[in-house]
Amino acid sequence: MFLLTPVLVALVSILMVWIFKNSDGGTERRKGEARAQAEACPWVDEDLKDCTDVHQVEEDANGWQESEEDVEHIPFSHTRYPEREMVRRSQEYYELLSKRRSVRFISNEQVPMEVIDNVIKAAGTAPSGAHTEPWTFVVVKDPDTKHQIREIIEEEEEINYLKRMGPRWVTDLRKFRTNWIKEYLDTAPVLILVFKQVHGFAANGKKKIHYYNEISVSIACGILLAALQNAGLVTVTTTPLNCGSRLRVLLGRPANEKLLMLLPVGYPSEDATVPDLTRKPLDQIMLFYFLKTS
Amino acid sequence: MFLLTPVLVALVSILMVWIFKNSDGGTERRKGEARAQAEACPWVDEDLKDCTDVHQVEEDANGWQESEEDVEHIPFSHTRYPEREMVRRSQEYYELLSKRRSVRFISNEQVPMEVIDNVIKAAGTAPSGAHTEPWTFVVVKDPDTKHQIREIIEEEEEINYLKRMGPRWVTDLRKFRTNWIKEYLDTAPVLILVFKQVHGFAANGKKKIHYYNEISVSIACGILLAALQNAGLVTVTTTPLNCGSRLRVLLGRPANEKLLMLLPVGYPSEDATVPDLTRKPLDQIMLFYFLKTS
Repeated sequence: MFLLTPVLVALVSILMVWIFKNSDGGTERRKGEARAQAEACPWVDEDLKDCTDVHQVEEDANGWQESEEDVEHIPFSHTRYPEREMVRRSQEYYELLSKRRSVRFISNEQVPMEVIDNVIKAAGTAPSGAHTEPWTFVVVKDPDTKHQIREIIEEEEEINYLKRMGPRWVTDLRKFRTNWIKEYLDTAPVLILVFKQVHGFAANGKKKIHYYNEISVSIACGILLAALQNAGLVTVTTTPLNCGSRLRVLLGRPANEKLLMLLPVGYPSEDATVPDLTRKPLDQIMLFYFLKTS
Repeated sequence: MFLLTPVLVALVSILMVWIFKNSDGGTERRKGEARAQAEACPWVDEDLKDCTDVHQVEEDANGWQESEEDVEHIPFSHTRYPEREMVRRSQEYYELLSKRRSVRFISNEQVPMEVIDNVIKAAGTAPSGAHTEPWTFVVVKDPDTKHQIREIIEEEEEINYLKRMGPRWVTDLRKFRTNWIKEYLDTAPVLILVFKQVHGFAANGKKKIHYYNEISVSIACGILLAALQNAGLVTVTTTPLNCGSRLRVLLGRPANEKLLMLLPVGYPSEDATVPDLTRKPLDQIMLFYFLKTS
């Protein structure tokens, strides 16, 4: 029906090749960006996203429940101290917390469980986005389960140290003398695994958005650390990298919960040591802003 | 030189159109994904990323400083209380914190600045990824600056409420009776603006990676909130959405610092009210994991 000259065949072939290269390009580029991101921020856990799954929200807008309840507003009752007592209380509180250290050597001595209840109750007083309280604290005492947790974490941490973290991060951690061996996961009498709920469920089964869930749960962890120090227990704040989904499955937690932190809790072992670090002085962390005048 | 039949012209035209559509597709799709993400997670601040800038790290690998310093390890000294005292201390600490509320009505009465120093010192005891202490607390007392901050926040918050947040979020906030009018930014005697440093600088000017900087600074904020409550001051935890870069410029903070939270601090005003909310009971936030036995 028509005449294909050799030049035209060549032209069409070149176009076809270019089309196929181009249609792959987008995917490749996106993969490349994801890889670059993972390399530049190796501490961002693959399983740990602050977001509710984007596509779920988009495709299933009617599956989400708004909070329609109206709440009464009541007078706020406040405990006020004389100024001198405020200064004394704040000074003593600072001194108490300044003695807190991350302790990686934890004795196997049991701790009173009433104290664990109280420190988690304290953590649960944290503020949260739209008062969603998006936290679950899973307490593990059973030696077999602790050991299974240790096995999962050591397996993943070995890969983290040897491959995922890269030489820069491993060098930055050298002063802590840490590696992928985590004996405290066996010895500590209590492990607290802190999960953030990336969304919740309303009474009717519809999903509830959990605004700022990672920030909220991190604030609760700050209060938990202070409460443990106040009670005379020690811990080390760990964020087991890329262990979240395996630990979630081991502990039977639902898919809307992501592991944010794991705190091994107990008394320090008798020969516990800590790196001899100092903290920045106040004038390096606090700045007063004064209006510039001409 | 060769013969173009009408059919061939049509074929080549179709191919060309397809090529151009396809080469745009990647960009469009990525834009679409970014938009979907912004719509599904409207609380993720445009200026607030947990990551060091990816491309900077990639392109400028030699500009980053590893921490080579070796640190001595020393015995850990611990304060241990008798069990009964541990239980009492943890119980009292919970009771103190359970009275904390987010208070949006703050009196203009001045507060002792020594207390502000102490609560920020307490916040500075928080643990941080690789002990990078990636926080800056900017304290603003000057009425003109507070008012400028209020103007920036109210301008952006009006857009947030009317456009960015969407009807679902606005409905979820209805019970708090909040809107974009933030009188406490003028009345509170002290504003604490908490910045996270997305990276730091070594003594030689090279950049230092700040691992987990957002989680670390959020933990420090949790301790700050507990310290304020302990001292008898009130605040409300706010995360001014998309105001970060304007406030950073106003306060003259460098580009590696991103606003994470703003805490207006003071005494409650005499007629302060709070929504009559309750907190989840312990058995809804704490779970014990027991090994399944057959």
